[in-house]
Amino acid sequence: MRALSAAQSQAEELGTEVCVVVVDAGGNLKALIRMDGALFLTFQLAQRKARTAAGLGVVTQDFAAAVSGSQALLAGLSAQPDIALLPGGMPIADDGAIIGGIGVAGGQRGEDHPIAQAALAALSR
Amino acid sequence: MRALSAAQSQAEELGTEVCVVVVDAGGNLKALIRMDGALFLTFQLAQRKARTAAGLGVVTQDFAAAVSGSQALLAGLSAQPDIALLPGGMPIADDGAIIGGIGVAGGQRGEDHPIAQAALAALSR
Amino acid sequence: MRALSAAQSQAEELGTEVCVVVVDAGGNLKALIRMDGALFLTFQLAQRKARTAAGLGVVTQDFAAAVSGSQALLAGLSAQPDIALLPGGMPIADDGAIIGGIGVAGGQRGEDHPIAQAALAALSR
Amino acid sequence: MRALSAAQSQAEELGTEVCVVVVDAGGNLKALIRMDGALFLTFQLAQRKARTAAGLGVVTQDFAAAVSGSQALLAGLSAQPDIALLPGGMPIADDGAIIGGIGVAGGQRGEDHPIAQAALAALSR
Repeated sequence: MRALSAAQSQAEELGTEVCVVVVDAGGNLKALIRMDGALFLTFQLAQRKARTAAGLGVVTQDFAAAVSGSQALLAGLSAQPDIALLPGGMPIADDGAIIGGIGVAGGQRGEDHPIAQAALAALSR
Repeated sequence: MRALSAAQSQAEELGTEVCVVVVDAGGNLKALIRMDGALFLTFQLAQRKARTAAGLGVVTQDFAAAVSGSQALLAGLSAQPDIALLPGGMPIADDGAIIGGIGVAGGQRGEDHPIAQAALAALSR
Repeated sequence: MRALSAAQSQAEELGTEVCVVVVDAGGNLKALIRMDGALFLTFQLAQRKARTAAGLGVVTQDFAAAVSGSQALLAGLSAQPDIALLPGGMPIADDGAIIGGIGVAGGQRGEDHPIAQAALAALSR
Repeated sequence: MRALSAAQSQAEELGTEVCVVVVDAGGNLKALIRMDGALFLTFQLAQRKARTAAGLGVVTQDFAAAVSGSQALLAGLSAQPDIALLPGGMPIADDGAIIGGIGVAGGQRGEDHPIAQAALAALSR
């Protein structure tokens, strides 16, 4: 709930509407909010970002940037059906272990990532 | 029905055969016509274009052009199984809110987009 | 049967083992042979090539070459789950109408296409 | 079992945690271990690498490098839902015939391939 609220506040500040998804270490849904005005595909995208963050232990924005140097690696990874190489996914760590992930979708370019960061920050408070 | 008729007229004028799909705000089918001569894969393509338009609120041709500047973003988005980054999808808006989408597939390169535009124009008449 | 035999002969001449799939105008299986030594993924690939050829009315090798000029189009089309932008798919036409497709997979690079051509040629004899 | 043990030893030597999958000639699971600390998506990736190796008879790292010279081929192959064009898959051959595949996922870049090699080497001992 803290993560959802923080993400929603950040989205409202940016003037956008998003879907926020939290998954556990197994990639299963723990919490979800799709703000009024966030369109239906934002759920699938947010879920896949959260699963990618939790399932690979990566910040999706950084991971996409890291692999995009190799065209073969970018093609091979982005094509995997369970992976979303898109900004807006953050792994949730506790004492060095990945315990879940956050995914945000629906913002304009560059907005999903800071909203996911705000959600993550709220969890460590 | 107005959208389907307008699309069909436009396709006949261009001398091509297409599948036209209209979906609601949730991405579910509202109307569909596959013209005689339009092959079977045109349905899946048109449906996915309509869902992309309604689910992300974008003109698919413009969206594909916008993201193709970044190779990582193009790879990440085009690989999402529910997204078709192809010309021929138009969102249907009413008073600023997205209420559905139109998808057209089956034309030669450059034909799907104007046919979808014709369908959309018929709805606002 | 004529198509399968011709493809098999051509594959044997090239010293390779392939899977050959024939689909009808609706993309459904009409005939299939997986030669001894052709590995299991050759079926999925051959089937998807045949469906692409029948469903879009294209020679898959030519189609892949045609769209590869535009990075956005290549990414958008190749990512569609029902499309295989790979050499080895030929549409079957009768009197100008597409009535099916042939797909071949399993050969080394450059081998699938001529095997599919041999299969198609056998049908028009 | 020999393959799993060898892979695990190699992973421990590299200080990483991976999932190792062995499939038979039909692509079906024969053995699997997901080490403590290997996140959940490593299973899907390792399985798909093993299936690609067994189903196409290729070392996935070499295959990805070989096709990445052609942008159309890279896009067409990597987008196939059953193929993982990623390092870490090795075919298992016996007397020239492919009898299965090994897939490894979870290591840092460059680690999956040598772990899969170690697993394969253990089988021929």
